[in-house]
Amino acid sequence: MARIVQKYGGTSVGDVERIKNVAARIKAIRDAGNELVVVVSARAGVTNELIARAKAVCAIPSEREMDQLLAIGEQETIALTAMALHGIGVDAVSYTGAQAGIFTDKVFTKAKIRTINAKPIEKDLKAGRVIIVAGFQGINDDGQVTTLGRGGSDLTAIALAAAVKADKCEIYTDVDGVYTADPRVVKDARKLEEISYDEMLELASLGSKVMQSRSVEFAAKYNVVFEVRSSFNQNPGTIVKQEVAYMEKVLVRGVAVDKDQAKVLISNIADKPGSAATVFKALANAHINVDMIVQNVGRAGLANLTFTVPLSEKDKAVRALEPALKEVGGEVTFDEKIAKLSVVGVGMRTHSGIAATLFEALAKAGVNIELISTSEIKISVIIARDKADDAARVAHAAFQLDQLGS
Amino acid sequence: MARIVQKYGGTSVGDVERIKNVAARIKAIRDAGNELVVVVSARAGVTNELIARAKAVCAIPSEREMDQLLAIGEQETIALTAMALHGIGVDAVSYTGAQAGIFTDKVFTKAKIRTINAKPIEKDLKAGRVIIVAGFQGINDDGQVTTLGRGGSDLTAIALAAAVKADKCEIYTDVDGVYTADPRVVKDARKLEEISYDEMLELASLGSKVMQSRSVEFAAKYNVVFEVRSSFNQNPGTIVKQEVAYMEKVLVRGVAVDKDQAKVLISNIADKPGSAATVFKALANAHINVDMIVQNVGRAGLANLTFTVPLSEKDKAVRALEPALKEVGGEVTFDEKIAKLSVVGVGMRTHSGIAATLFEALAKAGVNIELISTSEIKISVIIARDKADDAARVAHAAFQLDQLGS
Repeated sequence: MARIVQKYGGTSVGDVERIKNVAARIKAIRDAGNELVVVVSARAGVTNELIARAKAVCAIPSEREMDQLLAIGEQETIALTAMALHGIGVDAVSYTGAQAGIFTDKVFTKAKIRTINAKPIEKDLKAGRVIIVAGFQGINDDGQVTTLGRGGSDLTAIALAAAVKADKCEIYTDVDGVYTADPRVVKDARKLEEISYDEMLELASLGSKVMQSRSVEFAAKYNVVFEVRSSFNQNPGTIVKQEVAYMEKVLVRGVAVDKDQAKVLISNIADKPGSAATVFKALANAHINVDMIVQNVGRAGLANLTFTVPLSEKDKAVRALEPALKEVGGEVTFDEKIAKLSVVGVGMRTHSGIAATLFEALAKAGVNIELISTSEIKISVIIARDKADDAARVAHAAFQLDQLGS
Repeated sequence: MARIVQKYGGTSVGDVERIKNVAARIKAIRDAGNELVVVVSARAGVTNELIARAKAVCAIPSEREMDQLLAIGEQETIALTAMALHGIGVDAVSYTGAQAGIFTDKVFTKAKIRTINAKPIEKDLKAGRVIIVAGFQGINDDGQVTTLGRGGSDLTAIALAAAVKADKCEIYTDVDGVYTADPRVVKDARKLEEISYDEMLELASLGSKVMQSRSVEFAAKYNVVFEVRSSFNQNPGTIVKQEVAYMEKVLVRGVAVDKDQAKVLISNIADKPGSAATVFKALANAHINVDMIVQNVGRAGLANLTFTVPLSEKDKAVRALEPALKEVGGEVTFDEKIAKLSVVGVGMRTHSGIAATLFEALAKAGVNIELISTSEIKISVIIARDKADDAARVAHAAFQLDQLGS
C-alpha cells in the first residue's frame, strides 16, 4: 500500500467523459490498495471563459473578485469527479482549497501557500475515502479566496504530497513527460526518463509548458519526487528528483523556447547608485517577474537598462514603470517580437565550451543574438521570434539531443 | 438614507449585459445615499446545466457533492456583479454564503439557515461598500457547503434583511409582482398592490412561481416587509406584509394552480393506530414534502391513504415508502396527471360560502374534483391536469378577481 497524490490537468478533466475516464484510473489504483489524494484543475477552457466574462463587465477586474470568480472552475471538477467515483462504487469526498486547509498569503491571483492543515484530509483518508482537492486555490487569513497563479494546480499537488507525506506524486497532463525540446517544433525530440529539479526548474522558467517553476521549486525545497505523465495512456513519464551523479555526464539535457516574453529597454537613465533599484522595486511591487537583466553605461553618465517581462504583464509593467521613470529619468521602449532560447543541463557546471557550441550553431544558421544570460546550468539568448523554431532545431542537433545518453 | 436589501433572480443576471443593467440600478440607488446589500442568484440556466453534468457522471449524485457543485453558480454572479460595479466606479465586494456568515443545518440540498453572523457585512457597509452576497447557499458547522433548496436566494435576502435590520427588502424577479392568477393563463389577471404574509404563503405553497413558502414564512416570523418587483422596468411591485384590517374585506385574493404535483394512493393498509405515522415518518425522514392528506376506511378494517407530493420527488417517495409498506401492508399507486387549484384570501376567515361558489363554478365548467383540502384562508382541490387552466379562468371570473377591490 502506498499513499499517492495525483494531479489531473484541465485537458484530462475536460468533459464528463474524460472525468469518468479519470475516475476509472483512480478506481484501479484505489482497488490495488493505495491511499489517494487527487488534485484536479478546472475543465480546459473554463478559466478563459470566466476571464472573458469578467472583462465583458469590467475592463480591469479587481484581483480579489477575479480569484473569487476563477475558483469556481476547480470547484466544479472536484464535485463532478467525486460524483463519478460514487457512480462506480468508490467512496470519495471533494475539498475546495479552503476545506483542504490550504492557507495562503494575501496576494490575489498569485498567492503563495503558507501552510496546509492536513488534518481533515488525514481523517477522511483513514476512513477509506479518496480525497478530491481543488487545485489552484486557497484561502487567506481573512477568509478570502485566493488563487495560486498559472500552474497553481501542480503546486497544490506537490504541496499536498509534502503535507500528507505521500510516497508518490504523479502530475498527469496532456504530454507524455519532459522532452529534450518541444516535439511539435523539433521532430526528433526525445522523452527524458529522469531530470533533476535544477534542470526542470530552468526548463520551467524558460518557457517549457510542462510546469511552472514555482511548483518545481516547492518540490525541490521539500524534496518531493514527482512524475510528469499523460492521463491518456499508460506510458511512464519523466521522474523529477534530486540530482544524482550520473546526471552530470550529460552536458545538455534540453532546449527550451519561450515566446511569451517582451524585451524592455530603458535608455538614458541617470547612472547613479539606486537607479536600477528604483526601477526594479516598482516592478516588484507590482508583482511582475523580471528576467535577463543587462545594464551598460552609454554616453555622458547615462545608462541603458534592458530586461524581459512576460508578454501578458507588459501593460502592467508600463503602468508600474511610469512613476519610477519620473524619478530616475529615461525613456522606455518595448520589443514584443523576441523569443528566449535556452539550453539546460547540470553537466554544464563541470564542462566548458557549451556556450561556444551554441553561439556557433546559431551563427551558422544566421540567427542574431540580442541578449545573453547564463547561470550555472543554463545559457539563455534573446533572438528574433520568427527565428526561434529554426534556432531550437539547430541547437537540438548541435548537442545531439536526439541520441540516448546525450 | 435607508438600508436596503435587494435580491436579483437568475433571469435578472442572466448574461453580462443584464449584470451590467443590474449594476446600473444598484449605482442609482447607492448614489441616492442608501446602504445596499444585494443578493444574486446564478445566471438563469446555469443550475440546470450543472445538474445535467452531474447526472452525466453519476445517476444519483450525492447531495453533499451536489451542493458543492451548485454553489458555484452564485459564486460566479457575485464576482461578476461586483466587477460590473467597479467598472462604473462603485466600491463593492462579493461574499459567498460562507463569507457572509450564513450558517445552516446539515441537510444538504435543502438546508435551513440557523444563524447569520453579519459582522463582516456591517464592517464593509460602514466602509461605504455595496455588498454582493451569493444567494441559495450557506455553510454548516463542518465547513461544508450547503444549499437552501428552491427559492433559496429569496430566503437569503429576507434572512439578511432581518440580520442587518434593513429598512426595505426588494425581491427583483422577471415578473411585475403578485397577480390574482397566472397572467399567462388568465388574461384579465390583475397585479396586487399589497398582500398579507398568510395569503402570500398560501399562494407560494400552492404553486405560484413567484416565491417559495419558506421565504415568506421566514419574513412573517421576523416581520420583514418585502416587495416583489421586476428588474426590467421601474413599475412598483407587490408589497408583502402583516395583515391589516382592510385586507379582510377582500374575500378571495387570488387563484393558484400547481401542476408540479403527483397524487399518491396507498390502498388497503391496516387501519390501526400508527399506520399513517409509519408512512409519513418514512417520507419525512427522506425530506419529502407531503400535502393534501386524506384518509378513509375501506372494507374490512383496511384504510386508504391519499396525499400529494412534488412531482420531482416522486421517485424518492417510491424508495422511501418501500420499507414502510412492508411494515403496514398496502399497495401504492401514483397519478401524475393531476393539478392542484386553490383560491386564497384572508377574508375567508369571516365569510362563508366561498367553497360553494368555487365548487359550483367548477361543476358548471365540467371539472371533476378528486380531493378537497381547506385551511382558514384557502380552499384547494385536486383536479385533472388538462382541465387546470380552464378551471383557473372559471374560478378567477367567479370571484370577480379582475375588478379592483374584489
